[in-house]
Amino acid sequence: MVVEILAVGTELLLGNIANTNAQYLSRRCAALGFSVYHHTVVGDNEKRMTEAIKQALGRSDIVILTGGLGPTEDDMTKEVCAKVMGFSLEEDARTRKRISAYFKASRRKDITKNNWKQAVVPVGAKVLDNNNGTAPGLILERDGKTAILLPGPPGELEPLFSEQAEPYLRTLRPETIYSKMVKVCGIGESRAETMILDLIDSQTNPTIATYAKTGEVHLRVTAMASDEEQAKSLVKPVVKELKKRFGVNIYSTREEEELEDAVVKLLKKYGLTVTTAESMTGGMLAGRLVNVAGASECFREGFVTYSNKAKRKLLDVSKSTLKKYGAVSSQTAREMAKGGVFATGADACIAVTGFAGPEDSKEEPKGLVYVSCYLGDEVFVEECHFTGNRMKIRQQAVVRALDLLRRCILEQYHEK
Amino acid sequence: MVVEILAVGTELLLGNIANTNAQYLSRRCAALGFSVYHHTVVGDNEKRMTEAIKQALGRSDIVILTGGLGPTEDDMTKEVCAKVMGFSLEEDARTRKRISAYFKASRRKDITKNNWKQAVVPVGAKVLDNNNGTAPGLILERDGKTAILLPGPPGELEPLFSEQAEPYLRTLRPETIYSKMVKVCGIGESRAETMILDLIDSQTNPTIATYAKTGEVHLRVTAMASDEEQAKSLVKPVVKELKKRFGVNIYSTREEEELEDAVVKLLKKYGLTVTTAESMTGGMLAGRLVNVAGASECFREGFVTYSNKAKRKLLDVSKSTLKKYGAVSSQTAREMAKGGVFATGADACIAVTGFAGPEDSKEEPKGLVYVSCYLGDEVFVEECHFTGNRMKIRQQAVVRALDLLRRCILEQYHEK
Repeated sequence: MVVEILAVGTELLLGNIANTNAQYLSRRCAALGFSVYHHTVVGDNEKRMTEAIKQALGRSDIVILTGGLGPTEDDMTKEVCAKVMGFSLEEDARTRKRISAYFKASRRKDITKNNWKQAVVPVGAKVLDNNNGTAPGLILERDGKTAILLPGPPGELEPLFSEQAEPYLRTLRPETIYSKMVKVCGIGESRAETMILDLIDSQTNPTIATYAKTGEVHLRVTAMASDEEQAKSLVKPVVKELKKRFGVNIYSTREEEELEDAVVKLLKKYGLTVTTAESMTGGMLAGRLVNVAGASECFREGFVTYSNKAKRKLLDVSKSTLKKYGAVSSQTAREMAKGGVFATGADACIAVTGFAGPEDSKEEPKGLVYVSCYLGDEVFVEECHFTGNRMKIRQQAVVRALDLLRRCILEQYHEK
Repeated sequence: MVVEILAVGTELLLGNIANTNAQYLSRRCAALGFSVYHHTVVGDNEKRMTEAIKQALGRSDIVILTGGLGPTEDDMTKEVCAKVMGFSLEEDARTRKRISAYFKASRRKDITKNNWKQAVVPVGAKVLDNNNGTAPGLILERDGKTAILLPGPPGELEPLFSEQAEPYLRTLRPETIYSKMVKVCGIGESRAETMILDLIDSQTNPTIATYAKTGEVHLRVTAMASDEEQAKSLVKPVVKELKKRFGVNIYSTREEEELEDAVVKLLKKYGLTVTTAESMTGGMLAGRLVNVAGASECFREGFVTYSNKAKRKLLDVSKSTLKKYGAVSSQTAREMAKGGVFATGADACIAVTGFAGPEDSKEEPKGLVYVSCYLGDEVFVEECHFTGNRMKIRQQAVVRALDLLRRCILEQYHEK
């Protein structure tokens, strides 16, 4: 079955925002086993919207429309779509009540006549209750074609889709789709693909899709079968094979788990605390740890030591090391990690020093980075060579440092 | 004149990446005074690509195609577009030479037969030399319609567009377009719009477009005229009026200058150094400062004090303050900023403490944040109430802290 994603919004055509909804919906549709052949964006213009909806319904089975469901006159996705598909409009009492309650709960008193426009729905449409905004989602079916209308703000669209549109879409497929994510760190995308080329080449069901992320590769294994149990049993051996091939480089098999989540989980599991000592990442590494709600249990303090003087004063890096080997050296990285532990009493310290650019330095090319990890009276140092701009190099350094800590914990604490 | 953006790439339809090229090109086209009515995405499929190109050329004057110019068999944007527009293909000697030189310079020896496919161009096309990759950009003109083909990677597309496609597009317009960016901080988008509603409502030439960014609002003033001087003279009084209305809230009128750039520039101008003391932002604030190449001149070290104990030890926040007012209080924020200065000898310190969520804390709702700035023996504290998720709240706190420092410097050092 073919799905098409049609976004409505002049703000997209002006480049005010990127069409991240299309990315989100495409990923979810791929995971559900639907094919997406077209994304289209049109503005808040009746004529062009009418043409785009007609064309999309003509060539696809399901059209997901995003945006244009707001209370203003410009917002006309619902009206135009209903007209094209031959639905009349009527106020929905339940939706009016929900909007009323929504305004009450968010203590907003600026409810205007316009807002009730959002309670009007196509007669016969399925209404999807929006718990994060006023505009309801809508499903319209006619002549074997389906239109799904979702509000534009991602904070409203995503829960509406995953909680209500996705279960509906599952009913349209005779087969069940089941997919599992395998998140890999410390291996580049092309090397990861080479390592599983035989699996990718011979795949039919399940399939393996690879997604590159800064410093990471995500692999999605998707199977189709007549019921969930069967689909799961198809996915299982492939995931097992991936685990065998990527081993310790896999940090998670959970969709929503980020690298920092996996690291904080391991720290908590073994009752460890960590501190950070950062030069060129300048706080980004600590910032990633604090992304995790509840990181305070294992992360209490961190140091940004951008200058040599700060490295000496806060981390006790020796003057002779800095002079002899320079600030960007495995020796300095080693002393930074040690110094972090001694300054804080934490069980572990991760440290980063390197050249982020934009220009090559006098001594070394940009992209040369040392990450180190002190744990259990040992210090591990990794020399890395990253490419890309200043920000990209720093982001890769952060990922590598988190991953080094993760692997050190596994090495020392994990019962094999 | 109407421009359409047509992206080619199965990775977009799978949701592997977002179509950020369409956003970039739309913004640039808007700044050049072109109207964009459609974005389209199709996969690496000849039939659908042919239909999409025909449709786009039928309804728009200029079609910008992105992606599908790589060396593999899947890449066929050039071939399909040439076929639709009636161009034959031929190897371009200059491009072959450039690709050869590119491989040599990047010390890559893996040049294959496939790569020479990228030296083949439509006969009569304008060839745009790509300095950041192998695929050239191409401009095809026929029957009053223009197709501009650009490679997909943003690191190749953006310089090719701004250095070569943009000057070409300017020649297609009888008028000259001139635009100026006004970047505002510390005022929400809707309040900013309200403050200039009269200007927006009465605008024809120049126009004012507003773009919201986390904690910031960007205003682009664009004028059209017969020559650049005249266009500039139209923009000037509007920018002057915006400066009058937004005053100190404007941190820059330069397109490429970020808030952290403006802050570091001010610090350097007055020979000041700064340190950071962060709780809930956990290093993100320091990380923003280090985004600026050359920040080391004014930023040497920073503290992440996530726990109360760390606040006491590293910043000398008093036990009684933490006990009496709590870690999230103006009193604690004040002592953090003071403590940062005393611990480092820097001229200034910016500090952040707050509740980022995800849940409301026992005492206070999430989103309550105190930012403070110590400068010239004075401490300024701001109480903020942010909405959004954990990350959004922390990002807003970082912006507010940077902006507080900026305004403190202006207040104390700027000669009026």
